[in-house]
Amino acid sequence: MLRIAVLGAGRIANIHAANVAAHPDATLVVVADPWREGVDGLAAQLGCEAAYDCAAVLSRDDIDAVVIGTPTDTHIDLLLAAVSQGKAVLCEKPIDLNFAKARAAAQAVEREGGKVMLGFNRRFDPDTLRLRQAIDAGQIGAVRQVIITSRDPGLAPRDYLAHSGGILRDMTIHDFDMARHLLGEEPIEVGAIASRLVDPSLAQIDDFDSVMVLLRTASGKQCHINCCREAVYGYDQRLEVSGAKGVLLTDNHRPSTLRHWNHEHTEALEPLQHFFLERYADAYRNELGQFIQALSAGRALPTNMRDGLYALHLADCALESIKTGRMVEVNYAI
Amino acid sequence: MLRIAVLGAGRIANIHAANVAAHPDATLVVVADPWREGVDGLAAQLGCEAAYDCAAVLSRDDIDAVVIGTPTDTHIDLLLAAVSQGKAVLCEKPIDLNFAKARAAAQAVEREGGKVMLGFNRRFDPDTLRLRQAIDAGQIGAVRQVIITSRDPGLAPRDYLAHSGGILRDMTIHDFDMARHLLGEEPIEVGAIASRLVDPSLAQIDDFDSVMVLLRTASGKQCHINCCREAVYGYDQRLEVSGAKGVLLTDNHRPSTLRHWNHEHTEALEPLQHFFLERYADAYRNELGQFIQALSAGRALPTNMRDGLYALHLADCALESIKTGRMVEVNYAI
Amino acid sequence: MLRIAVLGAGRIANIHAANVAAHPDATLVVVADPWREGVDGLAAQLGCEAAYDCAAVLSRDDIDAVVIGTPTDTHIDLLLAAVSQGKAVLCEKPIDLNFAKARAAAQAVEREGGKVMLGFNRRFDPDTLRLRQAIDAGQIGAVRQVIITSRDPGLAPRDYLAHSGGILRDMTIHDFDMARHLLGEEPIEVGAIASRLVDPSLAQIDDFDSVMVLLRTASGKQCHINCCREAVYGYDQRLEVSGAKGVLLTDNHRPSTLRHWNHEHTEALEPLQHFFLERYADAYRNELGQFIQALSAGRALPTNMRDGLYALHLADCALESIKTGRMVEVNYAI
Amino acid sequence: MLRIAVLGAGRIANIHAANVAAHPDATLVVVADPWREGVDGLAAQLGCEAAYDCAAVLSRDDIDAVVIGTPTDTHIDLLLAAVSQGKAVLCEKPIDLNFAKARAAAQAVEREGGKVMLGFNRRFDPDTLRLRQAIDAGQIGAVRQVIITSRDPGLAPRDYLAHSGGILRDMTIHDFDMARHLLGEEPIEVGAIASRLVDPSLAQIDDFDSVMVLLRTASGKQCHINCCREAVYGYDQRLEVSGAKGVLLTDNHRPSTLRHWNHEHTEALEPLQHFFLERYADAYRNELGQFIQALSAGRALPTNMRDGLYALHLADCALESIKTGRMVEVNYAI
Repeated sequence: MLRIAVLGAGRIANIHAANVAAHPDATLVVVADPWREGVDGLAAQLGCEAAYDCAAVLSRDDIDAVVIGTPTDTHIDLLLAAVSQGKAVLCEKPIDLNFAKARAAAQAVEREGGKVMLGFNRRFDPDTLRLRQAIDAGQIGAVRQVIITSRDPGLAPRDYLAHSGGILRDMTIHDFDMARHLLGEEPIEVGAIASRLVDPSLAQIDDFDSVMVLLRTASGKQCHINCCREAVYGYDQRLEVSGAKGVLLTDNHRPSTLRHWNHEHTEALEPLQHFFLERYADAYRNELGQFIQALSAGRALPTNMRDGLYALHLADCALESIKTGRMVEVNYAI
Repeated sequence: MLRIAVLGAGRIANIHAANVAAHPDATLVVVADPWREGVDGLAAQLGCEAAYDCAAVLSRDDIDAVVIGTPTDTHIDLLLAAVSQGKAVLCEKPIDLNFAKARAAAQAVEREGGKVMLGFNRRFDPDTLRLRQAIDAGQIGAVRQVIITSRDPGLAPRDYLAHSGGILRDMTIHDFDMARHLLGEEPIEVGAIASRLVDPSLAQIDDFDSVMVLLRTASGKQCHINCCREAVYGYDQRLEVSGAKGVLLTDNHRPSTLRHWNHEHTEALEPLQHFFLERYADAYRNELGQFIQALSAGRALPTNMRDGLYALHLADCALESIKTGRMVEVNYAI
Repeated sequence: MLRIAVLGAGRIANIHAANVAAHPDATLVVVADPWREGVDGLAAQLGCEAAYDCAAVLSRDDIDAVVIGTPTDTHIDLLLAAVSQGKAVLCEKPIDLNFAKARAAAQAVEREGGKVMLGFNRRFDPDTLRLRQAIDAGQIGAVRQVIITSRDPGLAPRDYLAHSGGILRDMTIHDFDMARHLLGEEPIEVGAIASRLVDPSLAQIDDFDSVMVLLRTASGKQCHINCCREAVYGYDQRLEVSGAKGVLLTDNHRPSTLRHWNHEHTEALEPLQHFFLERYADAYRNELGQFIQALSAGRALPTNMRDGLYALHLADCALESIKTGRMVEVNYAI
Repeated sequence: MLRIAVLGAGRIANIHAANVAAHPDATLVVVADPWREGVDGLAAQLGCEAAYDCAAVLSRDDIDAVVIGTPTDTHIDLLLAAVSQGKAVLCEKPIDLNFAKARAAAQAVEREGGKVMLGFNRRFDPDTLRLRQAIDAGQIGAVRQVIITSRDPGLAPRDYLAHSGGILRDMTIHDFDMARHLLGEEPIEVGAIASRLVDPSLAQIDDFDSVMVLLRTASGKQCHINCCREAVYGYDQRLEVSGAKGVLLTDNHRPSTLRHWNHEHTEALEPLQHFFLERYADAYRNELGQFIQALSAGRALPTNMRDGLYALHLADCALESIKTGRMVEVNYAI
């Protein structure tokens, strides 16, 4: 039994805590967050201890591993403290919005031999797992072109956006990780364009709502990402990988399979599942499961600090491309 | 070059005449119909001769084959006359609404060794051709269950219905032929239920608008047919054949592939193609092509008088089942 | 908190027990079954008490409701005992394989005002819930034709089949319930055909593996059910309801949305989810949820003994139709 | 009746000639090509005159309009000659592989008020027509992102490729036109990456087989194009347009709707239609129809020399982007 503490009491922390509680090989010992009301409610619901001081939890002897679901700007301090206490860590992405800080943290973790897994949940989605499996099984031969569609159901509140690090570091970062995961080779060149098509007033916070990205690897494999902060039909998450022998595609999810035919249309399905909490519920569960399984088996964790660092760097390169109008070379000597 | 006369100037005759005119191995010599305005227009459009006396056309030496697209009650006289003049015939279904008359005609054609093909156009639809091909290629192993969905876009005018012979002989007859074609074995038992769900006043002409049929062959293969005179979403024509190794299905056709996603629905396609003229345009073309090809090659025609007779008999059995509440044994010693 | 006992330790009982344990408004007090090994394991896993005497559990004061997931021939004794102890019951279908016994039990429950819900899980499937909702919302106008496809992935072991009551009472019974649920009106006439297409040796136990059924209601609404004990592509469960204004369809489920295009095919999806445990996991959860919710709110249970009785009667009528070759009148004065 | 000459006797010219011959409002007077065997065969088949000197045909009084389907390097001479003789012209794309020459030709045509339509056949595909119609009808609100997938079934012969002008001018040029057509606004910035993933030896002719392009308009609308010279599953042609109120997508076409379910897959459809002759047969027919209709009605032709010129310029910009690693500004003052 792996004894786990969950840090945070917000939306994502709630998911992680419930998944830990339901996992047959793990015990949810404590949930911790300075927000007393939130953490008390969560602890009561899941039948575990509540704590208000995250740092204090990290030094407890009855904790083997920590899931960090607190605000981004607390990630580095908490994960480094956890590592120094010998705890395994599953940390929500991104490591930090600042690349230099993130790199320093990654280097520190690597120096100490810390076990840190970054929460790129989409890699653990059943659709993505099967997709990666099918690629590995040679079903489409050598990968050539990857196309990632990633659209949120609607614009987040201005307050959130103002501190999000911008669309590339907050939203597209998931797609940069997916691009690396599906290309099976590091992108070495990034080009991007960005616009304010949903809300022109995003100019006030120097952010965009619609971006298109191109990536190229050393051997010439190509990837396109398109992102938009608003899709009125629901959370749009599609992947396409074409190769020498065929194409693999994953589709969106809907609440039911009900199709409707009438005099205006046929085959109409429901709008897509609203957002990531519904769409990636299985992914979060699988992510935690693989974290626990890897720790139990003493195997390497499926994602690590480098994954977080590289995704962040790709986001920064894309931003530079938008600003300079140049394809930007990616530097992995970081 | 096969020299062909088309009898009739209505909707179906127009299709046949245009297909003959466009066929590289046939010449449309003449179109004939007592309706002078119609036949003159058709002849002008296709650049062929017009005639007003169908019977007279059948004795012409410059005609090798005849396509009969006139009203049902003229079919037998015309096809027997054509056969006695040594012409090959492609005749629209049904042979006749009266089974005894149809049987007598079939026997007469067989006695004289006449070449008569019945216009079961759906067998020649590209989808059906591929379906039959896939069954023959063993893609689903031995056939077990066949499901045929057949719904017209809307109720025909009362005048038409009153002389149609009833839904089973007018509409479901196509599906009875399809059942025989896909089962690959003759049905020996028929059960049916019928209702007036679209227009209760059909009781006045002793007809129905909605029927469901069950068929069973000697080896136990099963078939279900569902028919309705009204489908507000367009002409609904679907086939499903399940077998020991899998299932094959054909789908409806739409004017375009355009899909629409919005806040109310996703994947919505257009309503189905309106009716059989659009849906089976290719089928009519292929039907004529196979008629011409079989004649040119001296091969047996792909459908014959027996096919018309058996389909009509199945319709009569279904009607008897509806009236008696019994499964009805099919008698092929006819 | 509703205090629940689960009777049984087999496949279905396991599902119910886990769902009770995870439900926020219920407590799993005890699982009971004479099979000591099974029930001990289940209790240990879910952290509840184990008991070996089902009857004894029913008289406990700390139990409010009972879920019966034991073999069919124990259902009646247990549910009547539970009712006489004032417990609410969620009982797996069928009530019994013998109609007379089932009727006597239903009458007994009704006399005593017992609260018994029958486990027609498919009514609670998210797809079916949405389908029923869409019908109720008038999306297709008045219902005309219902088509139910229901195929198991493979033939059950001979031992199971020999005591199953036959395909109609064991398998099609779910579809009879679904027909009643979707037609919204009682069927008054039943016709059926049956064959042994998967395994001819089923004749030895006087059973079939493939059936097709027709149902008609008093107002003429129609339903077709097709069942087969084997579908090599997975558990095939499709519903179609056509009405005056359109059609609604629900589709099968697959483990992922992955599509594959290559030189042999395009759009290929995975085989269907294997069987009912996967396909109807959500349905079982919702079923229990509605049971608990109805009890908590003091509302009528969503299904009752009559539902079990009528479905069984429809199965018996279909069997009679197969044997007599007649459409059989349904008698609801039972 | 519009009297038309078709120049060329190759694959495309054959299609145009047959469409002219079948059009009710046009007469195919003559087909002309120096390749005597080809043009004689074509003329015999369609029942028109054959000529071997294209230029001579252009001065005939009995010709109102000319369809140019000859090799690219003859387009400008023929279209300018036709214009100077007062003939209307439907010319296959591209105008020329050399931008300066193409621009000079466009300016010459404009000076003379010539009626020249460029053969961007895909605009006239029924799917694209409906897509454009749906956008114009406001079904998705303001356009935001366009995604164009365009993959040929296989690499053309090296000889063809060596004189094709390169993938961007030969193949992607169709997609550049489609981008302009769907964005409804001129792209002002182009970025592109290119690789040799199908055949590395294309480096010998300084060409690529896989490209990805980004386009941005002045108001920030975005477009992504992905092209590949090989798709083993058939000719892949998909369009997606997302807007403020929804998304519209068009799909590939297959020879039939047949779906196959077995133990390895479900829903498998056939591979896509092989190539553009099959896929765009209707588009060529509609293109000719709109040409004839616009001339008859005295309306502006639906595409013109500018469309050819701009598409060619976008191809050149993309090539420059690949070579310089910069986003390239588009210059419409040409």
